[in-house]
Amino acid sequence: MLDNEENKKKDNVRVVSLAEALETGMTREVLIALHEADGIGRVTIATVFLYGVMKGPGSLRDSGDFLAGDWRDMGLSARQALAAERSVRLAARERRQVRYAEGRMGVVTYLDDDDYPSLLREIADPPWVLYCRGRLELLRHPAIAIVGTRLATGYGRKMAEGLGEGCAGRMTVVSGLAKGIDAAAHRGAVSAAYGTIAVLAGGVDRCYPPENAALYREIGMQGLLLAESPPDTILHPGLFPLRNRIIAGLSYGVVVVEAAHRSGALITADLALGYNRDVFVIPGQVTSPRSLGALEYFRKGAHPALDASDIFQYYEYRMPSVTGPEPANGAASGASAGEEGLNEDELLVYRLILDRPASVDELATFSGMTFGHLHSVLLNLLMKRRIEQRTGFVYHVL
Amino acid sequence: MLDNEENKKKDNVRVVSLAEALETGMTREVLIALHEADGIGRVTIATVFLYGVMKGPGSLRDSGDFLAGDWRDMGLSARQALAAERSVRLAARERRQVRYAEGRMGVVTYLDDDDYPSLLREIADPPWVLYCRGRLELLRHPAIAIVGTRLATGYGRKMAEGLGEGCAGRMTVVSGLAKGIDAAAHRGAVSAAYGTIAVLAGGVDRCYPPENAALYREIGMQGLLLAESPPDTILHPGLFPLRNRIIAGLSYGVVVVEAAHRSGALITADLALGYNRDVFVIPGQVTSPRSLGALEYFRKGAHPALDASDIFQYYEYRMPSVTGPEPANGAASGASAGEEGLNEDELLVYRLILDRPASVDELATFSGMTFGHLHSVLLNLLMKRRIEQRTGFVYHVL
Repeated sequence: MLDNEENKKKDNVRVVSLAEALETGMTREVLIALHEADGIGRVTIATVFLYGVMKGPGSLRDSGDFLAGDWRDMGLSARQALAAERSVRLAARERRQVRYAEGRMGVVTYLDDDDYPSLLREIADPPWVLYCRGRLELLRHPAIAIVGTRLATGYGRKMAEGLGEGCAGRMTVVSGLAKGIDAAAHRGAVSAAYGTIAVLAGGVDRCYPPENAALYREIGMQGLLLAESPPDTILHPGLFPLRNRIIAGLSYGVVVVEAAHRSGALITADLALGYNRDVFVIPGQVTSPRSLGALEYFRKGAHPALDASDIFQYYEYRMPSVTGPEPANGAASGASAGEEGLNEDELLVYRLILDRPASVDELATFSGMTFGHLHSVLLNLLMKRRIEQRTGFVYHVL
Repeated sequence: MLDNEENKKKDNVRVVSLAEALETGMTREVLIALHEADGIGRVTIATVFLYGVMKGPGSLRDSGDFLAGDWRDMGLSARQALAAERSVRLAARERRQVRYAEGRMGVVTYLDDDDYPSLLREIADPPWVLYCRGRLELLRHPAIAIVGTRLATGYGRKMAEGLGEGCAGRMTVVSGLAKGIDAAAHRGAVSAAYGTIAVLAGGVDRCYPPENAALYREIGMQGLLLAESPPDTILHPGLFPLRNRIIAGLSYGVVVVEAAHRSGALITADLALGYNRDVFVIPGQVTSPRSLGALEYFRKGAHPALDASDIFQYYEYRMPSVTGPEPANGAASGASAGEEGLNEDELLVYRLILDRPASVDELATFSGMTFGHLHSVLLNLLMKRRIEQRTGFVYHVL
């Protein structure tokens, strides 16, 4: 179960990579058990993994049989250790399976290479466990978040619904099932080709807010309900910002439709900027207090979007083609899509960087280009958003 | 007088530089006489200058005494040559002086190094002669154009007036005295520190449209009325696009407040893009047909602006400081302003480029930086809009 207090320490704990996590031998059943244990939260699970990495390969292989003492050895408190021991027991794990089946829920963990959304894995604090109800395959689509104020105007709702419908023609629309903009975006997207994902602050088995019960049921059938909180979680305010990080983390970008200055919906936009995702803003009147908070994001580099085409245009290079079949393998498709619209020299440099991140000096050596020309080629690739520069003048593909 | 037919040939005629024009020995009085002669327009004057350049220094020194035959030798038609002979006569020139004095008009020509606005000189087809009434010194200020539909909504007018007032605190607001957005922008700006310039399609002695007579008089006193058309010109529709090029040409950028799809006000925005000036758009509702034409400029790279601060922010580096005295010498001030906010390495590279345009390889040699580091410094300077890259990977200061 999530623990608010430990979130404050979060910044100091490194999240292990998938490869590191798998090497510890931890199983997904134990990971779920820890996630659901009372008083054990995201940071504690991160430290368990780090302990496993430190102890060496396979050190958590038998953690399904660990007793309280074993958990205490890893730094858990007495209370946490006891909760862990109880939660990993076979009987508890079986009870859970029954609960999931009854609730028509699937569970995806950080250890599930294929099912866990790859963009979500890239954020600083990815969820260890996700509960789902509905079409799990929506997690594999390119996704765009649409968020905004609960106190939407007619204009805002109309734009959100139209944008939801338009975007869902080629991307899955992610939002938070809140009243106002969220609900309108889901409503527009739910019947469209790429559908919609509602990320809930509580469990997927409980609709919040109750006003959206019909939409909640429809998304559970035609779309996907997603939550980090286990079933039967009691909602509290701290869960909403955590939910928002998943909305931002799943998505190529976040579209803000309407939001007052300091609106809660803007937390998702801030998170997106923090994750190096794009923020789009639907224009509205500067004199409307319900628009101003969104419009102010232009000053943080948000892009104006009039309709879905402005968003597609931005991601053209990394989206599956409209007419072609859906890619069997996301990574391979990304590579060939990234090469479209590049000239010969840009292609050469792009492929070098695709192979592995490289410094300017390495690229000059491998490409055989003069620095002046290489500089220009890199600039073009940056402008075309195929690559990005990170610290130490090292280039990565986007 | 302007001649519409010859505008169509315009693209093929090169405009001489100020130095070239001065070297021909042409006087401003003769230039004005040609400009006002019946049937002689911008292209014919350009060919006269080119003829002078071809014939060598001083070849137009005595053109005040040229007879029709001399003008015909330069390629003018019989009718144009006769008109030129009559217009350059001393008596005609003296009549003109009286007319200007009566109309409280000043005249600025392309040959007037100091008074002619430097940004306007940079466009492909700068006017040869400008007529002014009011505060001529406004032509020396940094200027921003505010344009939009004549059929403005209350929202549009309110935004234009507020923006006009805000912008005129640090820049001179340029517009076309049309109904709707233009008039609102002038009204907001006319009493503010940097004032406003109304560029008219007809002569400065005639108010068009008549509804704005009070504003026209106020701008003639507190601001500046400006026109390429000589006094007593009869208005025709072809003069409006020509006027719009002056609005765009005078200004750092053009702000579009409200404009329907294919609105005439957007001609000014297109001209600005063609002159490599910025276009800003004040957000409005996507569902408003009166906003949509403006909002579509986001797709051509227009920047969103909520108020004047967004525009100032964009030109911070090239504007005179807010508190300090106005610079005696624009170039010197530009140099030191351009250095603000740069770190040591950026400053080193910026000064090298300020000295003269330089290639990456030259910069690497002179700066002693590694290519990787230099590349990053150049990228920062590009992002901070201190320099630009031109063909052949050569950098120039902005």
